[in-house]
Amino acid sequence: MTLSDDLKILKEIDKEISLLNSAANLLWWDRATLMPIKAAEERAEQISFIAVLIHEKTTSKELSRIISNLSKNITKLNNIEKAIVTNYSWKLSRINKIPKKHIAELFKVIGLAQHNWEIAKKNNDFKLFAPYLEKIVELKKKEAKYIDPRGNPYEVLLQDYERGITLKILDETFNKLKRDLKTLIEKVKKSSKYGKEFNLKNIDFSIEIQKKVCQEISTMILDDNERFLIAKSAHPFMTKISPNDLRVTTAFRNDPLFSLFSTAHESGHALYEAQFSEDLKYTILHDAPSLGIHESQSRLWENQICRSKNFWKYYYDSYKQAFPNIKNVPMEKFYESINIVRPSFIRIESDELTYNMHIIIRYEIEKALMEGKLKVKDLPRIWNSKYKKYLGITPKTYSEGLLQDSHWSQGSIAYFPTYALGTIYSAMMYEQMLKENPKLEQEIAKGYLQFVKAWLRDKVHKHGATMRTPEIIMNACKKNLDPNTLISYYKRKFGEIYGF
Amino acid sequence: MTLSDDLKILKEIDKEISLLNSAANLLWWDRATLMPIKAAEERAEQISFIAVLIHEKTTSKELSRIISNLSKNITKLNNIEKAIVTNYSWKLSRINKIPKKHIAELFKVIGLAQHNWEIAKKNNDFKLFAPYLEKIVELKKKEAKYIDPRGNPYEVLLQDYERGITLKILDETFNKLKRDLKTLIEKVKKSSKYGKEFNLKNIDFSIEIQKKVCQEISTMILDDNERFLIAKSAHPFMTKISPNDLRVTTAFRNDPLFSLFSTAHESGHALYEAQFSEDLKYTILHDAPSLGIHESQSRLWENQICRSKNFWKYYYDSYKQAFPNIKNVPMEKFYESINIVRPSFIRIESDELTYNMHIIIRYEIEKALMEGKLKVKDLPRIWNSKYKKYLGITPKTYSEGLLQDSHWSQGSIAYFPTYALGTIYSAMMYEQMLKENPKLEQEIAKGYLQFVKAWLRDKVHKHGATMRTPEIIMNACKKNLDPNTLISYYKRKFGEIYGF
Repeated sequence: MTLSDDLKILKEIDKEISLLNSAANLLWWDRATLMPIKAAEERAEQISFIAVLIHEKTTSKELSRIISNLSKNITKLNNIEKAIVTNYSWKLSRINKIPKKHIAELFKVIGLAQHNWEIAKKNNDFKLFAPYLEKIVELKKKEAKYIDPRGNPYEVLLQDYERGITLKILDETFNKLKRDLKTLIEKVKKSSKYGKEFNLKNIDFSIEIQKKVCQEISTMILDDNERFLIAKSAHPFMTKISPNDLRVTTAFRNDPLFSLFSTAHESGHALYEAQFSEDLKYTILHDAPSLGIHESQSRLWENQICRSKNFWKYYYDSYKQAFPNIKNVPMEKFYESINIVRPSFIRIESDELTYNMHIIIRYEIEKALMEGKLKVKDLPRIWNSKYKKYLGITPKTYSEGLLQDSHWSQGSIAYFPTYALGTIYSAMMYEQMLKENPKLEQEIAKGYLQFVKAWLRDKVHKHGATMRTPEIIMNACKKNLDPNTLISYYKRKFGEIYGF
Repeated sequence: MTLSDDLKILKEIDKEISLLNSAANLLWWDRATLMPIKAAEERAEQISFIAVLIHEKTTSKELSRIISNLSKNITKLNNIEKAIVTNYSWKLSRINKIPKKHIAELFKVIGLAQHNWEIAKKNNDFKLFAPYLEKIVELKKKEAKYIDPRGNPYEVLLQDYERGITLKILDETFNKLKRDLKTLIEKVKKSSKYGKEFNLKNIDFSIEIQKKVCQEISTMILDDNERFLIAKSAHPFMTKISPNDLRVTTAFRNDPLFSLFSTAHESGHALYEAQFSEDLKYTILHDAPSLGIHESQSRLWENQICRSKNFWKYYYDSYKQAFPNIKNVPMEKFYESINIVRPSFIRIESDELTYNMHIIIRYEIEKALMEGKLKVKDLPRIWNSKYKKYLGITPKTYSEGLLQDSHWSQGSIAYFPTYALGTIYSAMMYEQMLKENPKLEQEIAKGYLQFVKAWLRDKVHKHGATMRTPEIIMNACKKNLDPNTLISYYKRKFGEIYGF
């Protein structure tokens, strides 16, 4: 086999994996948005079968041989080929170390764990879920050991989601963030405004008009509606079916802002996928290099743009036209209502400022679990003491406490930190944009968002997974991961609202 | 390998093919209903890749070995196992005879033919499409030769769609049908009512309310809405994603009856798929044994039930409530308007009586093409002369003539007869139901449709593909394919309406 034969087969396999992912993603998307309820079991079989095909293709001897061969000749490849080979090389170096038996066992436990987590959450019964979580922790520790017997198990798993971030970096970053967030939250609580904010949640908004507003928000962010689609699902998410088929979902609650900001959030994810370079189509590089940087894109549109005063200077008039029942609410009051800070139990419903405290709590807990410093049975005590200490509140039930999220039942451990990293990246990017374009906020106040989109495309999106996240951040923001930028942004924003 | 090993692997492969079909069907359904337009090319790649996987699984050496082995031991198998083996055996005996190269070439030509057919139809330019049709005819002749070098090529291809029906049967059936239809159409044209029928098409109906009516019609036929879903597409169709996930689409035209009857039609198809025996799940038997018998199910609900006077005795009051703009139209007038007979050019828009003439014209033409008695360049002349002779009208353009259908461009030759066979089967089934339950029409007039559903389930649906169509028809209707039953039904129905 010549080098070019190998490259040809690699590109074919890469494309086949990408096509299988399209089918899998459509099966997932359809399940969450449309599928008749009685088909749930059949759909699970379809999804799992496609997952098996993808796993077989990825772990085939042929792919391993080709990657090993091309790795030895890496200097002869062009930049995209190099990146494809190094990405697969890294992926195979992990996946090929895990015995098939282990994966099968993990999937079996996860199946049971998810089912029992649902019942446990519904019945507020932690004891029902605990044995499954214990088994998952044990298996994930084992998995980390397979991959790197000498590494810290949490750090090893973290690489699946945020490659290149170490425990040292996370500890430093989160400790700093925690300290500063605590101070800021205290300041908000002591503000004379606290508890007297104008609250929109009590006003009634029609779902039909909410849908129209979501469509508008999404069109503002995504422009081209021949590549995108919005649908309704129980939990908002974004999925790429293929490069020109990007799907955003939203959900409707009593709170009209939930659908609006979730649409902005998911549209931010979609814009990222929409702006990958054309060259990367049907390759492993048509993807973000990490979950954190993907999250930075949703955060940036949700928070820095759509929760900003300047955005509403532009958009509030037409928003009021859509919802005449707030026609007498001044813009400043409305802006206040969408930025109320209030420590609360449910992560995905929390405000912009307190959000990261939820992440830090989870990080500290799951790291301790993986390092063997904490046992599953002690979770309720630790959970409550951390909520009391960091946010000043104590959950009354497991369901609004440690049973709220499905992630652990799905075996996703070391995943939570990416949410906070994404938030930090988004603040760093926005600050850098402001430096490069001092008129940016005036432009946003006029509804002109092209600078933001072009900046993101050139500095972040178009690279796909050809570069690693730390490299992209350094090139785009001229510095490494830095929680101070986020803190400064919070100080400015919430200082103005709460008067400190 | 023991027999039970072979059976186990066969069941696995059978299930895997079924799961891949689910993914393929969802990709098709989504493309027709929701997919953003720019993703068309990517979607074609996904669908074709899944088709290749299905083809690879079906033509694998392992499956051939297992089927051949089990065929030799067929007496040791239970009835379902036997039917699975004989179905695969028949399928492989055809597919394995066609060289891969031929399939690749056919797919390439079809791709170009479809594209050029679309342009040709738009521009009324037969010459643009003719060379592609010539190539398709040539390749389909070759394909028939691969399968059976000594058979009549049309008859060989027909077996893919309606196994067990010979050219002799078709010729006898269609000649009889043609003669009688001609007489009946002449009678209608000479009726004093002809040209003076009450016509609903000129009345304006809201799409939103049409949707509601479609939902009602579909619910009447399908009952259980946790297994079904209705969506909108350019051309109505039904697809099974999986046994408990059956999808019907409809389309909306100026004519409100189009969406109503297309919903009844597609729901009839869905009910068939919904009532297969549970034992057949994930096997090749979870399917109709032929297209004609599948079509009989859509026809029966569309025509015998939903275009009948008794059905409207039950439903007309609530229909009028949905559309108050016809509140003064008496039921008899409405019934007349949904059964107007008028020779016309477009098959899928034709009335119940003249419909089969379109099929017979196509049958005669495509059979002559395949037998080498007719050349593609002579098609326009033949088409027009047959329309003049059988229906008394001459199309003014190719677009409303021989370019109207996409089937030939898709390589579907010998497929049209199944539409007429389905229509005949439906009349035979309905007549037999009436014999077994003389009160059936009174029941329908009260909206009670359970007898029809149960009869269809027990006599037709539950068997799936465990029996062949002629056997099912004989068992259910106590006679072989018989066009006279259809003609008698037409005489009764249209004789009453047109007074002859």
